[in-house]
Amino acid sequence: MTQAPYELYYWPTIQGRGELVRLALEDAGAPYRDVARLHGAHEGVPAMMKLMRDGGPGLEPFAPPFLEVGKLVIAQTANILLYLAPRLGLVPDDEASRIGAHQLQLTVADLVGEVHDTHHPVAGSLYYEDQKPEAARRAAAFTGERMPRFLGYFERVLQRSGGLHFVGGAHSYVDLSVFQVIAGLDYAFPKAMARNEAAIPGLRALATRIAARPRLAEYLASKRRLPFNEQGIFRHYPELDA
Amino acid sequence: MTQAPYELYYWPTIQGRGELVRLALEDAGAPYRDVARLHGAHEGVPAMMKLMRDGGPGLEPFAPPFLEVGKLVIAQTANILLYLAPRLGLVPDDEASRIGAHQLQLTVADLVGEVHDTHHPVAGSLYYEDQKPEAARRAAAFTGERMPRFLGYFERVLQRSGGLHFVGGAHSYVDLSVFQVIAGLDYAFPKAMARNEAAIPGLRALATRIAARPRLAEYLASKRRLPFNEQGIFRHYPELDA
Repeated sequence: MTQAPYELYYWPTIQGRGELVRLALEDAGAPYRDVARLHGAHEGVPAMMKLMRDGGPGLEPFAPPFLEVGKLVIAQTANILLYLAPRLGLVPDDEASRIGAHQLQLTVADLVGEVHDTHHPVAGSLYYEDQKPEAARRAAAFTGERMPRFLGYFERVLQRSGGLHFVGGAHSYVDLSVFQVIAGLDYAFPKAMARNEAAIPGLRALATRIAARPRLAEYLASKRRLPFNEQGIFRHYPELDA
Repeated sequence: MTQAPYELYYWPTIQGRGELVRLALEDAGAPYRDVARLHGAHEGVPAMMKLMRDGGPGLEPFAPPFLEVGKLVIAQTANILLYLAPRLGLVPDDEASRIGAHQLQLTVADLVGEVHDTHHPVAGSLYYEDQKPEAARRAAAFTGERMPRFLGYFERVLQRSGGLHFVGGAHSYVDLSVFQVIAGLDYAFPKAMARNEAAIPGLRALATRIAARPRLAEYLASKRRLPFNEQGIFRHYPELDA
């Protein structure tokens, strides 16, 4: 069996953080295997757990997603994208753009972490049902303060850089990741997003443009694109979107 | 006035995330100004807030810390260290070491975020006193599950790489940041750390070695090293360390 150059390992039933890597690979048309979603020998979640436990050829990951490339095993979503982007043509060449892209990606990561904690404010090891009162308070703070602050920040950065792209006047993985954030927030918090709609014309237009990119449009309509659901990071619990 | 090559901006009264950058600059003996802690014109917290609001010469930061270097303004702690480390001799040259170091640093960032949320599980905009029941539950989950998991991970990575250094068999900014994490956990959760002590002989020895590095020993004994306190990220609330 020929091995694809990129072997992605992530939970097979959710978009989660792995989706930020999938979008980059799909947008670039890069050949990759989404290993934990396959069903052959040395595939599936057992293969992922084995690589985590044994450390594999490189540094041990703390958690999925991680990417196997030759002898490297690269973990942490933003670190994976930092590695992939220049190889996939998903970031401009100049240093300021690369540093700025990574800075924005780490702010995306912070936002995604805060979204996760709206439904898991106590512990990831507990069910949402076991932390609902805490989730209600945290989600109210998130939709009331943090989400507008993050959206306002990304809108402002986008407008300051010309309105079409986040860095260097060119398409990059940051545009893809912010598209994913907007899609996720639309799913999880439709009411809160409606209240913010007037403040994010640039982000909304960006998300529309990204979804229409030919490779991504094909991907988003395919079975490779998992649906949002209530096991992922962006979950729709109506009581958290009051 | 001659401008130092590195202008660090961070809250002036806490170690916080800025300390991870300070440790790198201090360990390397790099000239820098800790701008928000100075009291002249165009210094202090107002200068930091102005640069955040106006965006300055580079990409707008979402939050401190950020570092001004010539025309660049670099935000996100791990991104700042990614930029500084090769310039300060704080990471080996090879690609695997640099990718691995950043991966570990992002895992440090995740841990630091979880420590913050032990006392602010609902919202950073509220006082700890306004979220004490939620904090008690979250801190119990952190000290009971997450902290041992993170510590076990770092101990294992350190032992697998020879026991002395995290990456490439050489001193790096990751060693410095993990030292800071150990110091912070010792301060915030002495009882929980005592329960973990037998599991982290490598991390404990590393922390001792780092604290004895001549430049760092001088720094740690100086007034430039702010004390831990209950406004920072690592806070000691006895009720959260039961």
